[in-house]
Amino acid sequence: MTSPITPDAPEPAVTDGDPIPAPVNRIPTPKATPPDVVRCAYMELVVTDLAASREFYVDVLDLVVTEEDENTVYLRSFEEFIHHNLVLRKGPVAAVAAFAYRVRTPEDLDRAVEFYSELGCRVERRAEGFTKGIGDAVRVEDPLGFPYEFFYEVEHVERLAWRYDLYTPGALVRLDHFNQVTPDVPRAVAYMEDLGFRVTEDIQDEAGTTYAAWMRRKPTVHDTAMTGGDGPRMHHVAFATHEKHNIIAICDKLGALRRSDCIERGPGRHGVSNAFYLYLRDPDGHRVEIYTQDYYTGDPDNPVVTWDVHDNQRRDWWGNPVVPSWYTEASTVLDLDGNPQPLTSRTDDSEMDVTIGADGFSYTRKGDDAQGFKLGAQV
Amino acid sequence: MTSPITPDAPEPAVTDGDPIPAPVNRIPTPKATPPDVVRCAYMELVVTDLAASREFYVDVLDLVVTEEDENTVYLRSFEEFIHHNLVLRKGPVAAVAAFAYRVRTPEDLDRAVEFYSELGCRVERRAEGFTKGIGDAVRVEDPLGFPYEFFYEVEHVERLAWRYDLYTPGALVRLDHFNQVTPDVPRAVAYMEDLGFRVTEDIQDEAGTTYAAWMRRKPTVHDTAMTGGDGPRMHHVAFATHEKHNIIAICDKLGALRRSDCIERGPGRHGVSNAFYLYLRDPDGHRVEIYTQDYYTGDPDNPVVTWDVHDNQRRDWWGNPVVPSWYTEASTVLDLDGNPQPLTSRTDDSEMDVTIGADGFSYTRKGDDAQGFKLGAQV
Amino acid sequence: MTSPITPDAPEPAVTDGDPIPAPVNRIPTPKATPPDVVRCAYMELVVTDLAASREFYVDVLDLVVTEEDENTVYLRSFEEFIHHNLVLRKGPVAAVAAFAYRVRTPEDLDRAVEFYSELGCRVERRAEGFTKGIGDAVRVEDPLGFPYEFFYEVEHVERLAWRYDLYTPGALVRLDHFNQVTPDVPRAVAYMEDLGFRVTEDIQDEAGTTYAAWMRRKPTVHDTAMTGGDGPRMHHVAFATHEKHNIIAICDKLGALRRSDCIERGPGRHGVSNAFYLYLRDPDGHRVEIYTQDYYTGDPDNPVVTWDVHDNQRRDWWGNPVVPSWYTEASTVLDLDGNPQPLTSRTDDSEMDVTIGADGFSYTRKGDDAQGFKLGAQV
Amino acid sequence: MTSPITPDAPEPAVTDGDPIPAPVNRIPTPKATPPDVVRCAYMELVVTDLAASREFYVDVLDLVVTEEDENTVYLRSFEEFIHHNLVLRKGPVAAVAAFAYRVRTPEDLDRAVEFYSELGCRVERRAEGFTKGIGDAVRVEDPLGFPYEFFYEVEHVERLAWRYDLYTPGALVRLDHFNQVTPDVPRAVAYMEDLGFRVTEDIQDEAGTTYAAWMRRKPTVHDTAMTGGDGPRMHHVAFATHEKHNIIAICDKLGALRRSDCIERGPGRHGVSNAFYLYLRDPDGHRVEIYTQDYYTGDPDNPVVTWDVHDNQRRDWWGNPVVPSWYTEASTVLDLDGNPQPLTSRTDDSEMDVTIGADGFSYTRKGDDAQGFKLGAQV
Repeated sequence: MTSPITPDAPEPAVTDGDPIPAPVNRIPTPKATPPDVVRCAYMELVVTDLAASREFYVDVLDLVVTEEDENTVYLRSFEEFIHHNLVLRKGPVAAVAAFAYRVRTPEDLDRAVEFYSELGCRVERRAEGFTKGIGDAVRVEDPLGFPYEFFYEVEHVERLAWRYDLYTPGALVRLDHFNQVTPDVPRAVAYMEDLGFRVTEDIQDEAGTTYAAWMRRKPTVHDTAMTGGDGPRMHHVAFATHEKHNIIAICDKLGALRRSDCIERGPGRHGVSNAFYLYLRDPDGHRVEIYTQDYYTGDPDNPVVTWDVHDNQRRDWWGNPVVPSWYTEASTVLDLDGNPQPLTSRTDDSEMDVTIGADGFSYTRKGDDAQGFKLGAQV
Repeated sequence: MTSPITPDAPEPAVTDGDPIPAPVNRIPTPKATPPDVVRCAYMELVVTDLAASREFYVDVLDLVVTEEDENTVYLRSFEEFIHHNLVLRKGPVAAVAAFAYRVRTPEDLDRAVEFYSELGCRVERRAEGFTKGIGDAVRVEDPLGFPYEFFYEVEHVERLAWRYDLYTPGALVRLDHFNQVTPDVPRAVAYMEDLGFRVTEDIQDEAGTTYAAWMRRKPTVHDTAMTGGDGPRMHHVAFATHEKHNIIAICDKLGALRRSDCIERGPGRHGVSNAFYLYLRDPDGHRVEIYTQDYYTGDPDNPVVTWDVHDNQRRDWWGNPVVPSWYTEASTVLDLDGNPQPLTSRTDDSEMDVTIGADGFSYTRKGDDAQGFKLGAQV
Repeated sequence: MTSPITPDAPEPAVTDGDPIPAPVNRIPTPKATPPDVVRCAYMELVVTDLAASREFYVDVLDLVVTEEDENTVYLRSFEEFIHHNLVLRKGPVAAVAAFAYRVRTPEDLDRAVEFYSELGCRVERRAEGFTKGIGDAVRVEDPLGFPYEFFYEVEHVERLAWRYDLYTPGALVRLDHFNQVTPDVPRAVAYMEDLGFRVTEDIQDEAGTTYAAWMRRKPTVHDTAMTGGDGPRMHHVAFATHEKHNIIAICDKLGALRRSDCIERGPGRHGVSNAFYLYLRDPDGHRVEIYTQDYYTGDPDNPVVTWDVHDNQRRDWWGNPVVPSWYTEASTVLDLDGNPQPLTSRTDDSEMDVTIGADGFSYTRKGDDAQGFKLGAQV
Repeated sequence: MTSPITPDAPEPAVTDGDPIPAPVNRIPTPKATPPDVVRCAYMELVVTDLAASREFYVDVLDLVVTEEDENTVYLRSFEEFIHHNLVLRKGPVAAVAAFAYRVRTPEDLDRAVEFYSELGCRVERRAEGFTKGIGDAVRVEDPLGFPYEFFYEVEHVERLAWRYDLYTPGALVRLDHFNQVTPDVPRAVAYMEDLGFRVTEDIQDEAGTTYAAWMRRKPTVHDTAMTGGDGPRMHHVAFATHEKHNIIAICDKLGALRRSDCIERGPGRHGVSNAFYLYLRDPDGHRVEIYTQDYYTGDPDNPVVTWDVHDNQRRDWWGNPVVPSWYTEASTVLDLDGNPQPLTSRTDDSEMDVTIGADGFSYTRKGDDAQGFKLGAQV
């Protein structure tokens, strides 16, 4: 398949099917039925200074503590009814221990075991769960090297949606999505489609190089995205707010706390996803996105939006620059023994290289190479 | 099953399963597999003065005209990619001609035919669709007397999500839900569960009388709700905005146009659904809700919230009064020949009677019967 | 002068000068120069249960405690730099002890003494101030019976404008205005104009009866308003938020605390002032308005807006009903000895009587007497 | 006077008086009484392509056209009642022809003539005004080289505050302030204080070099600011919106129009003024700020806030970088004959040089020189 990006087309391009070119080195599709994934549910983060991380996520970002002990803090968002959306676990190396998805039925755990076993992946199942609050669960080292978890059983806790007496100006109300760094995006997408995910948006160039793809189970723009780069690494975890002013309130609070230097990028409006966003870096450098107002994608023929990598509004609709660290830095992920996964280098072009700096190229209007005031071109 | 509402419990009650008492006069569950409904998709409204209705929905509410002719206007919301979310069709009697749902596959139309045929309902299928923009479709007179449509094929149009040059201060971005009036809510719920819907919230009293129930396919609080009353009638159709200020902007515009008298109720915060809302009446008296920010309900064990009918915050979290017309007035629905459906009277208690006026009773705090300043008690 | 309200004019009427008819029983204009009032600065409230009032203003409304002792709490808003905007003082009868205005220079206190002495008012001056944080101050029983204070010296405290770490979702950022109940509005206006205030908006009928008038020193719609009714009484004290969602957050929080019955009216958009508003009642029944986004009025020829008392959008731009308590209830004010001021009855028509209930009359569009759904007409 | 910036003080410093060091080369204070300036009222811009400028200000920014002819467009904001806040006049060189202030009385024009005559400035008075809609007016070439206008007489037009049927998502509701570039900020401030302006905030370094100062007549943070640089030039003209989302809507619309490259800086939160802001460049490069929610400054002893030039949150509270063009580019101003004013170079340090790039220095926390992710340090 060729890229839907063509020289004369308006930006971005819209296609009915999956616009991502077939991968060269495809992971074979298992015969086993994949587990029925409902949504991204929680991330387990290893942090090196638990007190510092707790302060960041609880005192600054106002996530709700469901439960905690001296080594671990279990956090959830205001509208969540399951035990946690984020686990902070003290450890020697800052890393991600699990990207956890909820499945539709207990039986889907059997399917997860079969699916990943057929893929030749390491699979571990624990009836008592891998973290507090979660029951029977399966963890795997997936074909891309990421630690994925699947679970159904979970402790229900109070959904604080109506507890406006507890809300703060920047209240985080849902876990929205993960974002993963992997060298070969088409290869990752093909595997994720086998797992039942669907592409909603992507970034390509005219030659068909794919820089990133967004994929969903729940009907939002994504439950996870695949971002091209040396991987496996975790690019970010994203929480949703109700409105845009909630995100601005987080920035304002960081300024008041003299911690504005943890704002890495934004706030801004994404081109991809159309959401309003902010990227922060936690005390270990783990990247957290705050995100609001993408769109419904649940129809089976939901149009897929393909952005030209050279379109300067693809990652920020206002054309504001993406800082280099956002492209280059990401978190280590762990194998099931807790050891850092080694990285494989990306061999396709890097989005940063083709868009900013001396050799990069971006436009606001196709065919118009006016530079404007943005800092990106000057880096 | 007894009501989860108990004298000592906090408000509202939360249960894991369906809290609605079993109906006395159950509609038998078909053996046929129901169609896989994706979401509520559009409503076909019959209006008596097309110019007046077009002005209301296009010039005042800023819905987008996909297509129109002298008898019909096809409208959509800003984030929609299917041909329409609302059809205004000129006719002699103000009424609803169809509540239309999108299904997952073309084959689901066969299932719809089987499901409703087994129920003994009148079923009509048209390969060319019942309205412009829609292909093969099935319409039925459902067991409750409502004209339901199911379709898969639909013309794709531009999703205007990114077209901020076209947005107005009160831009409507999605069709959110329908609301139907029916005499026996438990009976309606049992049938809708057979059709694959799930209850998310409901209103009961201690004796287990059910006044209303909210049900969903897509993971929001509802695709439709069943409101107890003489039926079948259409209570309202609801569109979503991004933020609360968008709803306020609609009120402000109506004031500027000296049309504030079409505001029937609100704006306010719902108890049920936790959404911010506004109810308007169109030139024919059809009720339109503007709605934003309910919560994710897509997990299979999503907690169900049961509100006490006497809880004064159930329908307005701020305790503001529900005007009588909101309880008593609703739109006629048509059979498949276009004739008004006759009404069956509700025999269970009426929510209005038990909550407002001389014999009604509502509280802000359980066990505290302070009256406060609200107008409701004075009606 | 005749009323600017005429049968054929659009609503509301705009005039360049003061549209208020001359009073029949004018308070003579003093020869003395009035003090140069900068703005309304604080109100001293007497409350009967200090703990309950503290909870309301501090824990619910999140005003900032500057200082407190067992009998008194000194509160300020987030952008304030003077010691307080509200004093809660424990006392036997709920009442208002002072409406305090800041003046431009210390010498303006001499002018206040002369001005009110010439008016024959009781005047008391205390070099050490009447409350903590305030220095040299003058209190008077003004010609309308209100306890007015004028002061220049005041303790400066931290302006918390940048302290976003302390903001709550409904943060109150400024004291905006007072509102006073007095029997003869034109008489009150003439005296306030002598004191240097200017009318910005008013409510009249065709016969020239004046129901209320808004007057300012700082360039907003008002520092105080005169509302027709038995007086002297205090109608409300108003604090400003930054945005409309802040006011909604206060309602949401009151719902979560099961205190929604302290919401007396709103939220809504005023016709008069064009501000977004909410009225609450504190534990003693003192009325507090939360208010945002009126307009600049500082030009010397700022157009004065006169609303027809029968215009249903004058007090709520969306035509939502004014509850009777809002018209009839108000707080006692004290004389300088701390005794309640006796009331003088209004002899002009009452706004409530002429607009709601069986004999009242309101319209959405001049000449159109459609009733609509609003509860007001049904009371 | 020494700078209030000290090594150990918290950021920013607050002082009761004017913290700006006395100028070396002071403009003598006239004996004449200065005119009583009410507020900044309008700017007259010379534009080279009137159609392009009209499209920018009317079709993109939605300012309201009061009147226009083939060479001139008169624009106002939604809450304005005077004839215009911005004049676009076609001319050969993009420039500013007038910074116009409204005065309190017609007699203040006599005072303006005396005041500037005594200063030795060129003064021109026209009974018929310099632009349509304005009556008797005085224009001067002020001691800093800026074309200042003073007027009282002005045509009143409809204040569109209540015309929500006309509002757009990014509606501009008031002219807020001007910003001027001048080489010697203390010298400019001393002259402006003679004219009756008061300093509200400023930027200094420990040595007392003053980089910028904000000054007001109306009780907001400023009617104009003096920014250090080669001058006289016009840095920007600023319009206010009601809420922050209105500013975001302008960015979103610019993205939709593929004109995001006219966004020069922001949106963001200012440290100075605490306002939410956005800077745009019009088709001629004139800079326009969109601004909302600074604070009340009308008290005579309003605390003055002095920011350390090295405080990275002074110009953006979130620490986001200031693009170099914002520091270096500004608009030509004209003399009363319409000729460009020659520039005088700044001899004090440049804010850009001391804060960004290889030799600059900024901190988020005093004494902490962590660099963070911001692009500024990399330019």
